[in-house]
Amino acid sequence: MSVSVGDVREAAGRITGYARRTPVLEVSSGLVLKLEGLQHSGSFKARGGFNRALAAGELVEAGVIAASGGNHGLAVAYVARTLGVRAEIFVPEVSSPVKVAGLRALGAHVTQTGSIYAEAYEASAKRAAKTGALVIHAYDQAEVIAGQGTVGLEVLEQTGGVDTILVAVGGGGLVAGITAAVDGRAHVVAVEPERIPTLNRALEAGGPVRVEVSGVGADALGASQIGAIAYDITAAAGVQSVLVSDDAIVEARQEMWRSYRIAAEHAGAAAFAALRSGVYTPAPGERVAVVVCGANTDPATLV
Amino acid sequence: MSVSVGDVREAAGRITGYARRTPVLEVSSGLVLKLEGLQHSGSFKARGGFNRALAAGELVEAGVIAASGGNHGLAVAYVARTLGVRAEIFVPEVSSPVKVAGLRALGAHVTQTGSIYAEAYEASAKRAAKTGALVIHAYDQAEVIAGQGTVGLEVLEQTGGVDTILVAVGGGGLVAGITAAVDGRAHVVAVEPERIPTLNRALEAGGPVRVEVSGVGADALGASQIGAIAYDITAAAGVQSVLVSDDAIVEARQEMWRSYRIAAEHAGAAAFAALRSGVYTPAPGERVAVVVCGANTDPATLV
Ligand SMILES: Cc1ncc(COP(=O)(O)O)c(C=O)c1O
Ligand SMILES: Cc1ncc(COP(=O)(O)O)c(C=O)c1O
Repeated sequence: MSVSVGDVREAAGRITGYARRTPVLEVSSGLVLKLEGLQHSGSFKARGGFNRALAAGELVEAGVIAASGGNHGLAVAYVARTLGVRAEIFVPEVSSPVKVAGLRALGAHVTQTGSIYAEAYEASAKRAAKTGALVIHAYDQAEVIAGQGTVGLEVLEQTGGVDTILVAVGGGGLVAGITAAVDGRAHVVAVEPERIPTLNRALEAGGPVRVEVSGVGADALGASQIGAIAYDITAAAGVQSVLVSDDAIVEARQEMWRSYRIAAEHAGAAAFAALRSGVYTPAPGERVAVVVCGANTDPATLV
Repeated sequence: MSVSVGDVREAAGRITGYARRTPVLEVSSGLVLKLEGLQHSGSFKARGGFNRALAAGELVEAGVIAASGGNHGLAVAYVARTLGVRAEIFVPEVSSPVKVAGLRALGAHVTQTGSIYAEAYEASAKRAAKTGALVIHAYDQAEVIAGQGTVGLEVLEQTGGVDTILVAVGGGGLVAGITAAVDGRAHVVAVEPERIPTLNRALEAGGPVRVEVSGVGADALGASQIGAIAYDITAAAGVQSVLVSDDAIVEARQEMWRSYRIAAEHAGAAAFAALRSGVYTPAPGERVAVVVCGANTDPATLV
């Protein structure tokens, strides 16, 4: 199974009027930030959620279901509320009361179960088999990937074209979607925290492998293995993989607030960190777009 | 003295490459936010500063001078650093150490003098007369107004036209510039805190009058009298004046963070507050742009 630029174009048509066309900001000559933290629910995840739900056509009464204590859960809850359907979100027992309250505020039915994400996921899959609710996976589904890819189409349209797009990677839905969207028209650089190198290790190993997960990016980039579809798409396209330190992410995030007044969560600052720390150095004249993919953060921690 | 749309167009040409073309975000059908908090130095003030300094041509060694403990001071310091000239900024003795440190971090020479703004302003005028430094007024200068007006040109270009633009007012430089820029192509609504009604009272009185200044907007909208040029331009154009409560401003600011992940200072949320509180109610189908004019705020206070 793969995702083509045509699938991403279809997704773009489908989610128009549901997902926001977020703006880009040219912060210096040749450097553009895609402000996806301004997306509904505070991250790009609403795109994939809308595409998956809308592609399914009429939804059963059980609505949609997802496992996520983070941005994916918020996005699915937002999508369901917008479409007027039921959302069930499964989160691990350890999830913070603030996150659970955020999901409930969006009208989602929240089940706290299992000590780790994988257990919550298992429980959600069982529940879906029983209710027939539409499963919206956080990254390993073609419609989700196609939806996230609309970020890439917009970057090309809004900038008139760039040479390179820097994107953070968790389970790989975003980077895979963008890779499909640009379809060779731009170089894609996949940025991961050193402490969560899911794609990096997979490219070394020749296929998805489990990695240890830790560090400041863990709440949003904490998938312990790259998605199968994402691996196939990025490996086939020769996406470049780079790693950034937690310190570089923290500093990049603060710099984005200080210099641009852009609020980003740690995952949302990872791609910028690659540039700022010199892990990725553009050639002279290279036009670069950085995807600022999420802003769900306590703003008090921006300074 | 007045400011024409031609002056604003000239300003736009002059400051290209110096001021940022900030993005707009369509938050709902017919409602666009102009994200001017993403401007250099965190507010639109850099536009007027650049236009005034660049229009002056070669600057003397004394550089530029301004009186302001707020966004105007930051903007002038930023402009001077960018152009490689000296900046002297006069602030009242009561100014917070954080603001003074911010100005110094941008390389400005800061003089703390006088117990209120008017005294710091007097001292800066005397100093300018001695050194020959270029005075950059916070709002009552044609080049400054023309520079701020570029916000209005961009709104029209980026949206393909709107019916109405909502703008916060302090000394009136921004609203006057935008009024000149749109030149009848959009209705301009001037928004002021109830507790700082400089334009509102002036329109009632038929000319600028002093008002008491207090409330959450005072740090950025706290001019005690509307500027003479701004009064002439806005009165002649029939700009609509509305007042918002401090509570409405506080709530609008929190709502902007909650719903859009946009950081705004209180002054930057005033125009949105007029809409949100119902003080200004658009007609069905009316296309509205709201200028989010500044983001220099402690992000911890956004929630
Ligand atoms: C802000 C943010 N950035 C990046 C990612 C990673 O996305 P993906 O799993 O599609 O790689 C996530 C996932 O939750 C996220 O929330
Ligand atoms: C964020 C912000 N908004 C609005 C204003 C008011 O601008 P003006 O004095 O041009 O009316 C200011 C002035 O400092 C400001 O800093």
